[in-house]
Amino acid sequence: MASADSKAQKRQKFEHVYTVIRDELLAHHASVGMPKEATQWFKENLDYNTPGGKLNRGLSVVDSVEILKGRALTDDEYLKAAILGWCVELLQAFFLVSDDIMDSSVTRRGQPCWFRNEKVGLIAVNDSFILEGAIYYLLKKHFRQESYYVDLLELFHDTTYQTEFGQLLDLITAPEDDIDLNRFSLEKHRLIVVYKTAFYSFYLPVALAMRVCGIPSIPGPKDPYELASSILIPLGTYFQIQDDFLDFSAPPEVLGKIGTDIIDNKCSWCINVALAHASPEQRAVLDANYGRKNKESEAKVKEVFEQVGIREKFAVYEEKAYKEIVGLIETIPEGGSKEGLKREVFKSFLDKIYKRQK
Amino acid sequence: MASADSKAQKRQKFEHVYTVIRDELLAHHASVGMPKEATQWFKENLDYNTPGGKLNRGLSVVDSVEILKGRALTDDEYLKAAILGWCVELLQAFFLVSDDIMDSSVTRRGQPCWFRNEKVGLIAVNDSFILEGAIYYLLKKHFRQESYYVDLLELFHDTTYQTEFGQLLDLITAPEDDIDLNRFSLEKHRLIVVYKTAFYSFYLPVALAMRVCGIPSIPGPKDPYELASSILIPLGTYFQIQDDFLDFSAPPEVLGKIGTDIIDNKCSWCINVALAHASPEQRAVLDANYGRKNKESEAKVKEVFEQVGIREKFAVYEEKAYKEIVGLIETIPEGGSKEGLKREVFKSFLDKIYKRQK
Repeated sequence: MASADSKAQKRQKFEHVYTVIRDELLAHHASVGMPKEATQWFKENLDYNTPGGKLNRGLSVVDSVEILKGRALTDDEYLKAAILGWCVELLQAFFLVSDDIMDSSVTRRGQPCWFRNEKVGLIAVNDSFILEGAIYYLLKKHFRQESYYVDLLELFHDTTYQTEFGQLLDLITAPEDDIDLNRFSLEKHRLIVVYKTAFYSFYLPVALAMRVCGIPSIPGPKDPYELASSILIPLGTYFQIQDDFLDFSAPPEVLGKIGTDIIDNKCSWCINVALAHASPEQRAVLDANYGRKNKESEAKVKEVFEQVGIREKFAVYEEKAYKEIVGLIETIPEGGSKEGLKREVFKSFLDKIYKRQK
Repeated sequence: MASADSKAQKRQKFEHVYTVIRDELLAHHASVGMPKEATQWFKENLDYNTPGGKLNRGLSVVDSVEILKGRALTDDEYLKAAILGWCVELLQAFFLVSDDIMDSSVTRRGQPCWFRNEKVGLIAVNDSFILEGAIYYLLKKHFRQESYYVDLLELFHDTTYQTEFGQLLDLITAPEDDIDLNRFSLEKHRLIVVYKTAFYSFYLPVALAMRVCGIPSIPGPKDPYELASSILIPLGTYFQIQDDFLDFSAPPEVLGKIGTDIIDNKCSWCINVALAHASPEQRAVLDANYGRKNKESEAKVKEVFEQVGIREKFAVYEEKAYKEIVGLIETIPEGGSKEGLKREVFKSFLDKIYKRQK
């Protein structure tokens, strides 16, 4: 029974489906006449960039389908949910491979970024496209006969476009080598978070699960997809603000990495809160030190963060966000809406996130 | 009457539709709350990269719809055909912006490549994604109610994926800085041309036109889309081989640019023909000089091309390709197939291409 599986077993079962879709993608590539060395390249692109992350997005499609169905899934239902989960992970891979190029990043998931491999370089741009293209190959192969096929396509189109809007806004607001804190604001931060992260990481997995379960769109204020979005976008925003705060506050040995948002001139929640509360003197310190590539500047920025009381402000924000999201979840009737939506889908997200330390 | 318009008028009418879709894309971008500077950036991305080319692919959607309908189009029919034409041009823009990054190109259409603009840089990667994403926004806005909507989506998905396969094969076969003529072959060249160019430049515009005109898919050997593909892929291959030959042979003042395929280590038809016919001595000259960044090496390669009789070989190829394509076109009944396909769609392409000098 899928629902009784331990976390590690769930992950393993999900990872097995990766080998299935990987082999399907490669078999198709070879079948249209592509030479061995090209198919081998595609294999390395897929294996290097698709599994290996936390898989939260992909697994949350499976989890959400299980909650919505309220029972263990049949093998076919599981496979379909897991394939959609891997499509979300492919979308993530598309974004990460290309983001690393745009950000000149060095490592990702404990290995060199794909484009940093000597033989790869800027071929990684096209490799990222192929990861995106693979989504539509898989959707066509596995969902073409389903009445909700076009809804799946539109979900991927819409969230991809939204994420690209968010990435553009982030890139022009906080270019790594052109520091201007006047461009920052909490409202800009919110927009970047909603568009760059929340739609594809939170709304997309749940909306895919809802489609697979046959939950219909209802034009107007009662649309279950609008309702899901109205909860998941604040939830995703809360998640990213935590992420920003942990980058500053969490001990590296707990977080598993060293935070670099200050050095990288990131439009993070912390800097935007600090800007909103800084005295003219503190503002001058931020202007002179934010985004600079040295430990001394970083320490001065951190000092201002402490001075404006960022820790307490985060604690206040977290309580407020938590209560707001709980309130939103409770607009769904206990026992589920008549369209089939259930509180538990959103609660399970919130429980995983609330007061996380890493 | 659209069909009586001169070439310049046709282009102008088509270009007007660009301003319509551009304004729709920007209005949507602003309407979701994006700040002015982000919408302005999107505008510059669109204007810099989408119009300004020859527009052959986009115009051929409109031309094909007119031929298939056999009459002047209503305003609504024209708009729909032209929007699909601009979607093909957006796809082309997506490829060109990103290809220029991958190839480290300097100029495109008489101006610096988009990523060469100082403020742009690698933000161009995300800008290319947005150009692709805009296609699906426009298709949803204008075609969602049509019975053939999902067919349009799949046409774009399939040809995008095919083009990315072709680009991968090209990039690993002929990297600019790693010359190895052993990787080249006429078969590899054919595969690259078919996947990287023919599907999106020739099959896609006609297949879109066929969908708009309601021509159905018929699974099996009588499928009109398979028939169209069986003509347009050889036609696209012939076009690209001409392109490769003209890069070598056409006077720059006629071609409008200076050919750089030899210097750029391109897997061109010319080098593959030369490799297939070179003596061991000629092969040594090619190995020592192909892809080298100097005029002397280029001249030596050109000498070998002449020695193997590339001009005559091209003339022979062109006659054979022409006859083969005419034969394929004639498999369509005179007066049109019962599904609605017409010889004239393909003839009009062939007439524009046959014995072109630029």
